[in-house]
Amino acid sequence: MNTLTGRRPSRRKSGDEPVDRLGVAVVGLGGAVATTAVAGVELLRLGACGQDGLPLAARTDLVPYEGLVFGGWDVSADDLAKAAHFHQVLDPAQIEAVAPRLQRVRPWPAVADPAYCRGVGGANVTPSGGLREQTDRIREDLRHFRAEQELDEVVVVNLASTERQPDLASPSLASPEAFEAALDGGSEAITPAMLYAYAALREDMAYVNFTPSVGADVPALTQLAERRDVPIAGKDGKTGQTMVKTVLAPALRSRALRVEGWYSTNLLGNRDGRALEDPGSLASKTATKESVLDAVLGYPVEDHLVRIDYYRPRGDRKEAWDNIDLVGFLGRRMQMKIDFLCQDSALAAPLVLELVRLLAEARRRGERGVQEQFGFFFKAPMTVDGRVPEHALHRQERALLDWLDGRAPRDGQS
Amino acid sequence: MNTLTGRRPSRRKSGDEPVDRLGVAVVGLGGAVATTAVAGVELLRLGACGQDGLPLAARTDLVPYEGLVFGGWDVSADDLAKAAHFHQVLDPAQIEAVAPRLQRVRPWPAVADPAYCRGVGGANVTPSGGLREQTDRIREDLRHFRAEQELDEVVVVNLASTERQPDLASPSLASPEAFEAALDGGSEAITPAMLYAYAALREDMAYVNFTPSVGADVPALTQLAERRDVPIAGKDGKTGQTMVKTVLAPALRSRALRVEGWYSTNLLGNRDGRALEDPGSLASKTATKESVLDAVLGYPVEDHLVRIDYYRPRGDRKEAWDNIDLVGFLGRRMQMKIDFLCQDSALAAPLVLELVRLLAEARRRGERGVQEQFGFFFKAPMTVDGRVPEHALHRQERALLDWLDGRAPRDGQS
Amino acid sequence: MNTLTGRRPSRRKSGDEPVDRLGVAVVGLGGAVATTAVAGVELLRLGACGQDGLPLAARTDLVPYEGLVFGGWDVSADDLAKAAHFHQVLDPAQIEAVAPRLQRVRPWPAVADPAYCRGVGGANVTPSGGLREQTDRIREDLRHFRAEQELDEVVVVNLASTERQPDLASPSLASPEAFEAALDGGSEAITPAMLYAYAALREDMAYVNFTPSVGADVPALTQLAERRDVPIAGKDGKTGQTMVKTVLAPALRSRALRVEGWYSTNLLGNRDGRALEDPGSLASKTATKESVLDAVLGYPVEDHLVRIDYYRPRGDRKEAWDNIDLVGFLGRRMQMKIDFLCQDSALAAPLVLELVRLLAEARRRGERGVQEQFGFFFKAPMTVDGRVPEHALHRQERALLDWLDGRAPRDGQS
Amino acid sequence: MNTLTGRRPSRRKSGDEPVDRLGVAVVGLGGAVATTAVAGVELLRLGACGQDGLPLAARTDLVPYEGLVFGGWDVSADDLAKAAHFHQVLDPAQIEAVAPRLQRVRPWPAVADPAYCRGVGGANVTPSGGLREQTDRIREDLRHFRAEQELDEVVVVNLASTERQPDLASPSLASPEAFEAALDGGSEAITPAMLYAYAALREDMAYVNFTPSVGADVPALTQLAERRDVPIAGKDGKTGQTMVKTVLAPALRSRALRVEGWYSTNLLGNRDGRALEDPGSLASKTATKESVLDAVLGYPVEDHLVRIDYYRPRGDRKEAWDNIDLVGFLGRRMQMKIDFLCQDSALAAPLVLELVRLLAEARRRGERGVQEQFGFFFKAPMTVDGRVPEHALHRQERALLDWLDGRAPRDGQS
Repeated sequence: MNTLTGRRPSRRKSGDEPVDRLGVAVVGLGGAVATTAVAGVELLRLGACGQDGLPLAARTDLVPYEGLVFGGWDVSADDLAKAAHFHQVLDPAQIEAVAPRLQRVRPWPAVADPAYCRGVGGANVTPSGGLREQTDRIREDLRHFRAEQELDEVVVVNLASTERQPDLASPSLASPEAFEAALDGGSEAITPAMLYAYAALREDMAYVNFTPSVGADVPALTQLAERRDVPIAGKDGKTGQTMVKTVLAPALRSRALRVEGWYSTNLLGNRDGRALEDPGSLASKTATKESVLDAVLGYPVEDHLVRIDYYRPRGDRKEAWDNIDLVGFLGRRMQMKIDFLCQDSALAAPLVLELVRLLAEARRRGERGVQEQFGFFFKAPMTVDGRVPEHALHRQERALLDWLDGRAPRDGQS
Repeated sequence: MNTLTGRRPSRRKSGDEPVDRLGVAVVGLGGAVATTAVAGVELLRLGACGQDGLPLAARTDLVPYEGLVFGGWDVSADDLAKAAHFHQVLDPAQIEAVAPRLQRVRPWPAVADPAYCRGVGGANVTPSGGLREQTDRIREDLRHFRAEQELDEVVVVNLASTERQPDLASPSLASPEAFEAALDGGSEAITPAMLYAYAALREDMAYVNFTPSVGADVPALTQLAERRDVPIAGKDGKTGQTMVKTVLAPALRSRALRVEGWYSTNLLGNRDGRALEDPGSLASKTATKESVLDAVLGYPVEDHLVRIDYYRPRGDRKEAWDNIDLVGFLGRRMQMKIDFLCQDSALAAPLVLELVRLLAEARRRGERGVQEQFGFFFKAPMTVDGRVPEHALHRQERALLDWLDGRAPRDGQS
Repeated sequence: MNTLTGRRPSRRKSGDEPVDRLGVAVVGLGGAVATTAVAGVELLRLGACGQDGLPLAARTDLVPYEGLVFGGWDVSADDLAKAAHFHQVLDPAQIEAVAPRLQRVRPWPAVADPAYCRGVGGANVTPSGGLREQTDRIREDLRHFRAEQELDEVVVVNLASTERQPDLASPSLASPEAFEAALDGGSEAITPAMLYAYAALREDMAYVNFTPSVGADVPALTQLAERRDVPIAGKDGKTGQTMVKTVLAPALRSRALRVEGWYSTNLLGNRDGRALEDPGSLASKTATKESVLDAVLGYPVEDHLVRIDYYRPRGDRKEAWDNIDLVGFLGRRMQMKIDFLCQDSALAAPLVLELVRLLAEARRRGERGVQEQFGFFFKAPMTVDGRVPEHALHRQERALLDWLDGRAPRDGQS
Repeated sequence: MNTLTGRRPSRRKSGDEPVDRLGVAVVGLGGAVATTAVAGVELLRLGACGQDGLPLAARTDLVPYEGLVFGGWDVSADDLAKAAHFHQVLDPAQIEAVAPRLQRVRPWPAVADPAYCRGVGGANVTPSGGLREQTDRIREDLRHFRAEQELDEVVVVNLASTERQPDLASPSLASPEAFEAALDGGSEAITPAMLYAYAALREDMAYVNFTPSVGADVPALTQLAERRDVPIAGKDGKTGQTMVKTVLAPALRSRALRVEGWYSTNLLGNRDGRALEDPGSLASKTATKESVLDAVLGYPVEDHLVRIDYYRPRGDRKEAWDNIDLVGFLGRRMQMKIDFLCQDSALAAPLVLELVRLLAEARRRGERGVQEQFGFFFKAPMTVDGRVPEHALHRQERALLDWLDGRAPRDGQS
């Protein structure tokens, strides 16, 4: 088994002792975001980069970045040095500096189901088998990872390409018991992402879903997390356009500027963009993007359009162009246009690192079930009992910092 | 004396009784912002427009918009219907609907000093005279306004074109006593804007400065406000580009995206834009625009450029184009461009209406001196004892709402 | 029959005498483009507007704008004053100035087929009947128009909403004989737009198609035009984004800047935009938009995407946003973004006026069949024998001016 | 003397024999444009890059790129490999590929005059001396270059940072005789750029000015070029924003869209940008940029503003943002915004290579004096007898290709 070793192994910790070696098991380890996260930790270890992009770099109460040990699954068997060259997120000099360490990390064979993610394929997959057999293999991978690497804790992270939406009304997803039965008997409603989430929970490992896919956000798995005292969080990392939207929209509301229309288009050319050429995956993605606006503004925006296009020339660098039509005092019409030339993986990777550290902290504190206070990181924050989530970035940040500082949230604060 | 009557006069109020008729004495009454504010109140009275753009429309604890009675000074003697036609902020149909009422409002002769504002001139000026004589005339105007209109309170608002910066180190501005002496003896450091602010304070009327000019923000006048128990606020309304800046910059900081450069350019074609063709006035304006960024981010942005250009084709509709250069994780460079096609007066006028109502409320509550909690409205919020002001819009809003609700601000909250 | 009368009727002209009264029979007379064109001619007649937007305003050898007399069909029976109010292209004051004349123009009942244009409907339609019956009615309308208005010539213009693409391989469209047989026997391949084109040709009237629909551009009708000595031109007016594309792309080729990708998105909110919510109509529209680029550049652009979205807040004002990815010397990558905030009808209407004048001139000169020299006005210029059309705007302009001046085109000129 | 050798020396050519080895003597050899041009020729020689960005790559009748041999002057003595690293125009891998050859090229000491170019300095300057002495040194450099490298021809190219404008009315610049006298007697009107131009002409070498500085565009030097039968061309390379302007403006005229205002701003962060922080140099630059628009449109644009700002974060990559206010049919107002994210040197260097080849061709053909047909490359094309130059890019291209093909220009063609 190949992993990236943080430091020399030390003894296991128990109780609320600080975590020395935190395992990160990534679904989609060879993707651009994961590769960037792993390379970033190596560059931080070398002192070869600063802490730009890491919102919690100053929090010394969290596991240090250097304590992270990476492993995970991918449909491509390429080692991470090769993956980094392919994704072209880092400078050649940066890849070279950490190549010896990245070469040692090779993804484990992944569970794949073309019915749920058509756009992206690969040969590094487990032999087909029943759902139960697949979860058993994933759990075996996780136990092996923890033992071999002498890890204090493991967090499982979903960074795989977007799956299409399953049938959420399926009885198989309604309770842990039904889910267990379906694992044995088979069910079309169970997606690969759910298998990884289930395996994590059964191994008492925290789970975080950074993708728009349905992962632990079904009753069967949120209840399982509650019962097993395991924290979970998600979903769909809020990196570019939606992040800006949840910053601007609250301000427009503060100034009482009415949003008459909001047109958002996205150009992206990396593997995730290609996966979105499948209409099923695209629907999952735009759904989480569209839910945000009305909630923040407090009224429905009739003309809120979100477009995502695979546009090859841009590679991992993406572009989000937004047009907002506003109505101000006395009906005066105004427009705002925002063009964000960003780099998907550079925005996402540091958030993944922070989430992993936060879930380890939540585990240490004995939190269980959905961790709403991590909504700061997500386009579609999971909530307890289906509450409407808070989307405004500054209020999400406030909630996160309050939790970190052990301070009760202040009601009615905006 | 010409004014715009809110409702039929009622008896004067005393103590903390609610205000029925609130006078608004505007410096620069014929300008685009003031004209739009006056017309807006008339349209609200007719029920001919909605409440878009008015952030505090739902606060029934403030004086209703219909209670506002306008008067004021301008270098142009045109009545406000004529001014509204000239500024082209409103639709012709809107102007027509309120023209009979606007025609009744004619600006009083203004104090003007070409040494301080070269770009804009007019014939409706008081005969030249000493500084004392000029403040006497302004005070007489204010007393006459209050009496004739049977006003419960009067708030003085500066909406005049930007003046160039005076010599702030002048001893004449250092204390109320020195200022009084200079009014009699003459001083080049005393600007027209200060004369109006002084007159307001001496008449025990609240004062708010919505322009970048130096108004009450000198020790002589802030101390005078304290001594006379009068609330003051300012300065420089935060409407377009800077509003967006104080929304985005906190979010960039939240995400640890480092701002390497921020280039802001402004095209505006109205009377205020023409005034800024004078380098002195322009310097005052860009100064308040530039101070914001470093304070919000917590580090100096070496390449923060702010350009303002008078560009005739745009009229009162203005355009603010911003480019931001960002550095993210592992040194990845990104860019964000924002193009805000807005209408200056439609953004500013409703904020002026809210400030007037808030200052009346502050006066009712017995507040005195600089009202920091109104920083939400300003590019360069005045603070007590020269403290660095809060610029982040969402924290300014929090402080405002806390004050309105009689709640103590929560320390350390971000 | 209601029409807009140019001047007092004069005697009919013959031979190559100049045309005094030129009839314009518009398919889609109540739409934004047609209404704007008609109102524009009336405003020109009043001297109430300048000649901005009219490329051939200086050509005194063409029929003067004041000589145009409008009539036509529409699925809405509203008179053109009402239509002008609805479309909001003109200022209220402009509509008022010409309302008495516009009120006199009421569209004739139109031939409509929901199978070909689902997005837009109306009650002002002819009773259903066979294809032959429908062409007979259209021809009767045209004869009546010519006689009643004492017109020297009539040009038929298609400005109706975009139809979906018919089966172009249908034998019914292959020759005039087959078409005639199909009119009697019925054929699913014959669209409403073709019926109007056929009727025009049978009445010896020039025909121009300003829409992306298939009109006269099938062998049956181009051959008919040749046989009857009638000039035809089309198709799809080149107004906004594509106009800019055929200006920039030749320059990029001149500078050898390689186009790696070109992403075009369009927001439009008028009736034409709504028609494009039907996927069939949308396909017709994007097809003509996409064909342009490769032809101009001389190589295929793999990543040329064109998106069109109906976006209600914009009304007739539309927005075209383009991103171009360029590769320059030594592989240096560059980007150009263009945001065109334009008004569809204001761009299209004057081109329609010029085309009508040019087709009258072509008729006067005895030209017949496809008029390639009018490609300047079209996104998908019709050519003789399926030749690849010239798309570069400056070369199209050269060809047009050469024809107007009776000068032979210079071979090899670029 | 250090130069970059094209191929093995061959015998000298005479008459109109093709040129084998063409010397290129560059003023400002260490700058970003020159370094990129030299590196580009080396990469072409290695077959390590394509021909993107080279408009005349297909013209086999011109000297091949591989025949170019570079030398020149710079205030910095750094070899070109070091300069290439500094400018960061090329990828590290590209620099590495040609570093051995670039290291052999070291700039000769330059003539510098801080009075004319304050922004940029360096130590690699000739000892101060009289003007005559300086021209003698330059001529000696040129003769040495030609002899040592066994060059068939030499073209002198000005690529140095922009100088401020001299007193063009000075009698010293009025005739060759006056200029000669001034070289001996001294004159403040003679700039370093003129000294290089004069030296080239006296050595019978063609001269091209790619900068906004005054070079050969004074009567003294254009007459000298005529007398000595030497071709000259200039000035100010048309690369980014102005190139786009001379493409779009002709199209707007073709469509009769009236330009009410055009606002252009430029962000650039390379050495040339720094030089423009000197107001004198900036004035030279904006003058050539501003002259273009009215000439193309045929009427004066009252509100044409051009801003250039040194903005460090962008380095050699620059950004040009344009806003155009248009008036169309019936007074409808529209806007177009263009954001060009380009790379100065990558746009300029290939044009320099083409100009050098063209001037060698002009010399071979015996052309003398100002070569108007090269206006395609310049923002402010020099003309004979002060004629207004053609600015529209497509007409400039036509004129260039006509000349290349030995075809007379067609009068009246637009």
